[in-house]
Amino acid sequence: MVAAEENPESFFAAAPPLRDADAFAARLAEFLARNSAGIREGGRRRIVCVTSGGTTVPLEQRCVRYIDNFSSGHRGAASTEYFLKAGYAVIFLNRRGSCQPYCRFLPDDSFLKFFDVDAESKVQVAECHAPVVKKAIGDYCKAIEGGSLLKVPFTTIFEYLQLLKLVATSISSIGPRGMFYLAAAVSDFYVPWDSMAKHKIQSGGGPLDMRLSQVPKMLSMLRNQWAPLAFCISFKLETDPDILIQKADMALNKYKMNIVVANLLATYKEEVIIVTDKERSTIRKINKDEDLEMQMIKILSQNHSKYICGITNECNQSPD
Amino acid sequence: MVAAEENPESFFAAAPPLRDADAFAARLAEFLARNSAGIREGGRRRIVCVTSGGTTVPLEQRCVRYIDNFSSGHRGAASTEYFLKAGYAVIFLNRRGSCQPYCRFLPDDSFLKFFDVDAESKVQVAECHAPVVKKAIGDYCKAIEGGSLLKVPFTTIFEYLQLLKLVATSISSIGPRGMFYLAAAVSDFYVPWDSMAKHKIQSGGGPLDMRLSQVPKMLSMLRNQWAPLAFCISFKLETDPDILIQKADMALNKYKMNIVVANLLATYKEEVIIVTDKERSTIRKINKDEDLEMQMIKILSQNHSKYICGITNECNQSPD
Repeated sequence: MVAAEENPESFFAAAPPLRDADAFAARLAEFLARNSAGIREGGRRRIVCVTSGGTTVPLEQRCVRYIDNFSSGHRGAASTEYFLKAGYAVIFLNRRGSCQPYCRFLPDDSFLKFFDVDAESKVQVAECHAPVVKKAIGDYCKAIEGGSLLKVPFTTIFEYLQLLKLVATSISSIGPRGMFYLAAAVSDFYVPWDSMAKHKIQSGGGPLDMRLSQVPKMLSMLRNQWAPLAFCISFKLETDPDILIQKADMALNKYKMNIVVANLLATYKEEVIIVTDKERSTIRKINKDEDLEMQMIKILSQNHSKYICGITNECNQSPD
Repeated sequence: MVAAEENPESFFAAAPPLRDADAFAARLAEFLARNSAGIREGGRRRIVCVTSGGTTVPLEQRCVRYIDNFSSGHRGAASTEYFLKAGYAVIFLNRRGSCQPYCRFLPDDSFLKFFDVDAESKVQVAECHAPVVKKAIGDYCKAIEGGSLLKVPFTTIFEYLQLLKLVATSISSIGPRGMFYLAAAVSDFYVPWDSMAKHKIQSGGGPLDMRLSQVPKMLSMLRNQWAPLAFCISFKLETDPDILIQKADMALNKYKMNIVVANLLATYKEEVIIVTDKERSTIRKINKDEDLEMQMIKILSQNHSKYICGITNECNQSPD
C-alpha cells in the first residue's frame, strides 16, 4: 500500500492491464495527427482532454461490489460542447453511461444511434421535443463528422488512470497548445488489485472492516512527467464551504495547476470560483437557460491564450 | 451497529425517512385494490413484487461516495414481462436507471417517452431497429394502460428496504396469492446513517479504514411478520461454484423461502438452479434468442399454483 501511495508507477504495475490498449493508442495517434497538423485560421489547433464522470473502485476481482463517486458528467459534457464551439479538438475521457455531449436534454446517448436524420432531418418525436432533438442530432453529427471529437469511455479507477497517462504522454507532443480539463470525480481511495478479494465478500461474519489505500496523486505525474507544458485545470468539489478555497489553493500550489475550479456540491450548477496564483474570480449563472460552462470555457480559453503567448510568443490568437 | 444487526426495527428507526411515502402508499393501495379485486378467468388475480437492480450504500450523508452492487436489472425486467404475460399484476421495485421491462433491446426507458405512436404506429427509426422498437412500445403501453404494472424506483438500501416493507405489509392482504421475486442485489453491509460522515471524507491522511455494519436480514421479517402467507422466491448469486448450492440451501432453511434461485455471476444468463426443500432442478437456456426467464417464470408460476392450492384449495387454476 505505502509503496503505491508514494510511487505512482507501482500503481500502474499492479493494475489490471487495459483492454485493447494498442487499438486505442492507434485511434489516439490518428486523432492527434489530424487535429494538431496544419495551421488553422487564427493560429494552430488546440487540443483539450476533458475528463468526466466518476471512477469506480472494485472491492472484488470478479466485481460484484464497488465504490462509486457521485458525478452525472453533466459539466464535462457541457464543457465539451463549448470547447468544440471555441475551436478546440476534444478528447472526451468519460465514465461509461455518464452524460454525453449534445445529449444533455436527451434520455441517452445511444438514443442518437436509433434515428435516421434524412435531408429534411425529419425525426418522429413528440412535437414538444422535436426541436431540441433535431438540434442535438445535428450538432452531434457535425462534431463527429468533423473529426474533432474523440470519445473514450472508462469505468474503473484502473482504466481511467491508464487512459489518462496514454492521452497525456501523447498530447505532450503539442506542448502548451494541449490542455487538461480534469472534471472527472476520481476516487481518492482504492483496493490494490493484488490485495483484492478474488470472490464475492461473504456476509454473516459480523461487521466488515475494510482498509482502502490512497490513490497516488497523478496530478504531479501529469504536470512533471507526462505533459509538462500542457495547460492544466483541475476541479475541487467539496460539501463544506469552510474548507473549499483552502483546498483549492493547496491543489494549485502542490500540483502546480494553472487553474483550479472550486465548487460546492450544493451549488456547482449555479456558481464556481476560478482560482489562479494571481486571482480568484467567481462565476455565477446569469439566467437559468444559460449554461454556466459557456462563461467558464470563455475565461479558461482566454487564460490558455495568455499561457501559450507567454511560452511560444504565438500571441493574440483565437483557439481556431 | 450490533443493535441494528440484531433488530431490523432499529435499522428503520435510524434510516433517513422515505420521500413522498404517503403518495406512494396511496398509489400502492389503488394498484392493489384494482388488481386483487374481482374474479378473473381461471381464478383470482395474483400479484408479484419483482425487485430488481442493485442497492447503494452511501458513505457520506451529503453523498459523494457510495458502495454499489453490480446488477444490470436485466433479470428482473425480463421476468416482469413474463409474469405479466402469465397474468400476474406486477409491482416492479427497481433501481433507478436499471434495465426496464420491454426496454431490454432499447437504449433507455425514457426513450419511450420521446415517441409518438400514431394510428399506423409509425416510428421514425433506422429500418433495422424499427420492428423491435415498435413491439417494445406497443407492449409497454399495453401493460401500463392495462394498469397491471406498477413501477417503483429506489437507489439506496434505505429506500429499498422501506419500500419493500410498505409493499409487503400491503400485499399480505391477499395472502398466498401474493408473491415476492427478490432478484435485487441488496447490499449486505452498510454505514448506519447516524454514524455516517456528514461531509465528504477527506483524503491525504493515509489509508482509510472503514467499518461497515451488516444489513439486518429482512427476509426473516418478510416471511415472519410482513407477509407471512406470501410465496417467497429469493436469489443467491455467487462467483464461487463450490459454495453456491450450500448457500442456497442455507437461505432456503434459515429464511423459510419457498424457492431459492441459485446462479453464478459467470453463467447467470445461461443457467440457474431452482432449489426447493424437495428438489433441485437446473434450467438452461435452449437457444440464444430465447430468454431463460421464460422457462423460469413458467416453473415458478406452477409452484405458486400448487402452493395456493395447498393453502386455500383453489386448485388447478392458471394465474389469470
